[in-house]
Amino acid sequence: MTEQKKRTTIVLFSGDYDKAMAAYIIANGAAAYNHKVTIFHTFWGLNALRQETSAPVNKGLLEKMFAKMMPRGADKMGLSKMHFGGIGPKMIKHVMKKHNALTLPQLVEMAQEQDVNLVACTMTMDLLGLQKEELLNDIEYAGVAAYLADAEEGNVNLFI
Amino acid sequence: MTEQKKRTTIVLFSGDYDKAMAAYIIANGAAAYNHKVTIFHTFWGLNALRQETSAPVNKGLLEKMFAKMMPRGADKMGLSKMHFGGIGPKMIKHVMKKHNALTLPQLVEMAQEQDVNLVACTMTMDLLGLQKEELLNDIEYAGVAAYLADAEEGNVNLFI
Amino acid sequence: MTEQKKRTTIVLFSGDYDKAMAAYIIANGAAAYNHKVTIFHTFWGLNALRQETSAPVNKGLLEKMFAKMMPRGADKMGLSKMHFGGIGPKMIKHVMKKHNALTLPQLVEMAQEQDVNLVACTMTMDLLGLQKEELLNDIEYAGVAAYLADAEEGNVNLFI
Repeated sequence: MTEQKKRTTIVLFSGDYDKAMAAYIIANGAAAYNHKVTIFHTFWGLNALRQETSAPVNKGLLEKMFAKMMPRGADKMGLSKMHFGGIGPKMIKHVMKKHNALTLPQLVEMAQEQDVNLVACTMTMDLLGLQKEELLNDIEYAGVAAYLADAEEGNVNLFI
Repeated sequence: MTEQKKRTTIVLFSGDYDKAMAAYIIANGAAAYNHKVTIFHTFWGLNALRQETSAPVNKGLLEKMFAKMMPRGADKMGLSKMHFGGIGPKMIKHVMKKHNALTLPQLVEMAQEQDVNLVACTMTMDLLGLQKEELLNDIEYAGVAAYLADAEEGNVNLFI
Repeated sequence: MTEQKKRTTIVLFSGDYDKAMAAYIIANGAAAYNHKVTIFHTFWGLNALRQETSAPVNKGLLEKMFAKMMPRGADKMGLSKMHFGGIGPKMIKHVMKKHNALTLPQLVEMAQEQDVNLVACTMTMDLLGLQKEELLNDIEYAGVAAYLADAEEGNVNLFI
């Protein structure tokens, strides 16, 4: 056990900016501590991996509706508390800038630089009609079996 | 350790359809992987165990109000995001049907077939005025002590 | 392993009364089971540590707005479900009283008596403009690194 890397595995289910921030701050911290880190993005958490602009893809009507209603990328996500029709996120981002805190898109970029495994859940991609072309490059695609294989060896497992 | 079964223990606190789905998908996956799996239903998560119809039980006024306001069973639960007064759940269920994804009631049934321990938290049953007659058959009843005894041996522990 | 204390580590991210109750009930249970327990309060979870009244502190405008909009202490927090403009919490508290259940402020007090480490996340204190003078006495202050050091040895790690 001692020579093996410690592992942190996070399920990011939430599509909230603040919760995704917490997930990425913990992930980046764990990577800095030399953990092997995986963030498994499922359901609304997939939105953190969406590209702001992407090549047009063919979709059915429901999938188009979902795509339209869901935030297009990390920067567009709302808050879990005090959203106030979008004022909350603006306030938080203003305060973050003042304190030189990293934004969510910057935290995602840092995670990629630190080789955190960013995984998109293929089952919920199907459900929400999201296609690979719409998500960030250099991420992985897997299902619950792969998540469990990682998590059962994990030192820190969180569902966010 | 090698001959012992791995363990997955999930606290299902949330009463949202999508979060409960995630909990049951992970639980069923872990059971398929031969883990010993427990879902400890507490607070709003108890609603996933309610029967759609049940024998009438005697309740105080507040308990009756709670019973009325809370969803009666897995199929009636709302979404954590994009609920839109009930349109979101309809859209999701439509998409799930199209993709042949299992519904939440089917996931619960599969969990019971795979011998996942479905536990109802007795303390919060008291608080919300839920009685055994209102919940599914063949579930267990326990408190936080039993949860912790399971979780401290757990390989994967999640709070959903 | 056998002579070492087991560890439970909870990230309390949520500012909801019911979720904070769940966190503190698990924490107190684990402490009673002789675990070494840490609750790491971050983002809205910090509100559980606010004092109802505190010495006035100097703040910028945004920090004043946050301070005003966020609940002042455990007793003022809302529900994650069925909040109904404040009626839900009243109903829950009424029911809790009837069942002699401990309130959230009592659960926090019990945690302090049982030597649960209550930690305030310094990074999010900065973001939300919360100062030490506004929080409970006898708590600790730390960042994500300290959380991870605890969590990687944890038997039960939860994000609530």
